[in-house]
Amino acid sequence: MQQAQTIPHDALVVGVDVGGTKIAAGVVDTQGNVHGRIKITTDTSTPERTLSSIAQGVRSAVQATGVTMEQVHAVGLGIPGMVDPAQGICQISVNLGWQNVEVRSWLERELQLPCAIENDVSAAALGESIYGVSKGLDNMVYLSLGTGIATRAIINGKLYRGAHGMAGEIGHASFNPTGPLCRCGGRGCLEALAAGPALALRAQDELRSGKSSLLRDLIGKQPLENLRSEDVFEAARKGDALATKILREAGQYLAYGIYLLSMSLDPQIVIIGGGLAVEGSPLIEAIHEGVTRWLENSPIFREMSGLNLLRLSSLQHDAGITGAAALITSAH
Amino acid sequence: MQQAQTIPHDALVVGVDVGGTKIAAGVVDTQGNVHGRIKITTDTSTPERTLSSIAQGVRSAVQATGVTMEQVHAVGLGIPGMVDPAQGICQISVNLGWQNVEVRSWLERELQLPCAIENDVSAAALGESIYGVSKGLDNMVYLSLGTGIATRAIINGKLYRGAHGMAGEIGHASFNPTGPLCRCGGRGCLEALAAGPALALRAQDELRSGKSSLLRDLIGKQPLENLRSEDVFEAARKGDALATKILREAGQYLAYGIYLLSMSLDPQIVIIGGGLAVEGSPLIEAIHEGVTRWLENSPIFREMSGLNLLRLSSLQHDAGITGAAALITSAH
Repeated sequence: MQQAQTIPHDALVVGVDVGGTKIAAGVVDTQGNVHGRIKITTDTSTPERTLSSIAQGVRSAVQATGVTMEQVHAVGLGIPGMVDPAQGICQISVNLGWQNVEVRSWLERELQLPCAIENDVSAAALGESIYGVSKGLDNMVYLSLGTGIATRAIINGKLYRGAHGMAGEIGHASFNPTGPLCRCGGRGCLEALAAGPALALRAQDELRSGKSSLLRDLIGKQPLENLRSEDVFEAARKGDALATKILREAGQYLAYGIYLLSMSLDPQIVIIGGGLAVEGSPLIEAIHEGVTRWLENSPIFREMSGLNLLRLSSLQHDAGITGAAALITSAH
Repeated sequence: MQQAQTIPHDALVVGVDVGGTKIAAGVVDTQGNVHGRIKITTDTSTPERTLSSIAQGVRSAVQATGVTMEQVHAVGLGIPGMVDPAQGICQISVNLGWQNVEVRSWLERELQLPCAIENDVSAAALGESIYGVSKGLDNMVYLSLGTGIATRAIINGKLYRGAHGMAGEIGHASFNPTGPLCRCGGRGCLEALAAGPALALRAQDELRSGKSSLLRDLIGKQPLENLRSEDVFEAARKGDALATKILREAGQYLAYGIYLLSMSLDPQIVIIGGGLAVEGSPLIEAIHEGVTRWLENSPIFREMSGLNLLRLSSLQHDAGITGAAALITSAH
């Protein structure tokens, strides 16, 4: 683990949350306030172009804040993939199409600023643990629920990486060996059962097999492939039986994952973040129902976790940006 | 976490592994050598009698080593249950029938020696990490497989307890919601599917339903209830189909547990210890087969864990005794 550098109290750091479709960045002060938030499209045509997108995102955030690059102390980045923070290398990123990309040295040369990199979910977990709902707690699990699914844990007050920086890749654990193929090559992985694209695919399949649903009205004359997880949420909110069933089943799988992680890690809380962590959404309701059922059925889970295990992220999209900045400003 | 006290290089500590049926104890030197190993029956009729059994075990080990109580520096104990090491209290132990027993103060008064307590599997994990196959590794999972099933992890070089000392109670995670009732009150827990007593119960049920098997010859005219897991192992070694099937199924469940723990914790190795961790046994073979199948099916698990994830305990029964002693002699 890298130690926090000694940095001035009023230092500004750019935090970057690199995604497969969008790059979000902001200038973060040492209190975790985010200034000049920007979002740009990720160019994933070549690794060099992706790195250029990132550099562009950093410059745009600095400009939007009304400061100069000279006033910025350093840059922290969360990257969707397997990352070696000590070497500054991303070993593999399916979303970015990267293999062994020397992220840190490239960006440090380009931006003339010190850079630090981490896995994106690790960065978001760090953000939540320093500035969010788990502030001050020593043991928590952060579940990122969106296009992908992964967890990262804060253990004994520190980000837990595991032997290969992969601790928490529960999104690629199979919960149904005869389930749908996952983009990782496995079958029935939690991500292939319950992440955003899985919900959309599941709904498309059900419509193709002739099921009636409000979803047909929502997509109208568009091809079925255009149906997105947002449509499934909207239909469920309007009481559609098929959409409700799809979200309930996904919620059950996610609840089982949370239950297993809790039995393994005995956290104080589990925070749900990411694009699908929306208060009052039918998926979040289904997760709550599922976890409640496990609490009822397992005396030991109940004794450990009590009834207040689950929390929604309070930082939402800023978890990734503030956590990336905290790679520079905190001992993690 | 308690810090290691400064103790002399030649100090002797008594390590005690308290079980529901037997208490094992030994005098341990600072190199982890065990002297004067003894094993006595646990009197669980009342908490006070159990504590007396433990004190008796300590005195017997000291006597067997040929030293005096005055030469002993302190006593460390591993207790099967939920333990608060800071308060010296066992909150609950199903095996011992304890609730909120003030273990440390009672034993310190009785033995006139400083005492430290921990959960028994935590102590064994600590023993393995200091003296066993995972010596020097920062991240490992220890799976105790015997009358009960539980895991404990060494994370970033330290014993990981979780928020309530329950991290690793995967033995009480349900892997089959319609499975057999577990003694914890849950249903289909890993322990109810794959621990020693579960294997025996499963075999008894199969024989009751009329299945033919070598097991019938092994128990002869005894009542079916006398059939033990040892009989299932013996029958499987002799090629019995029913016994082999029972162990293979249990091995599949255990392999799934190891796979899930590995995806959650990304350990360098997983050590299998406890009474059923016997080299070449059909259960261990089945676990290996099951884990190999998950490695084949999950590219991410393969990338993380490689092919040398599983190890058998090298310390066997001494893991608990040396780990209990290490509660005194190591910063853990």
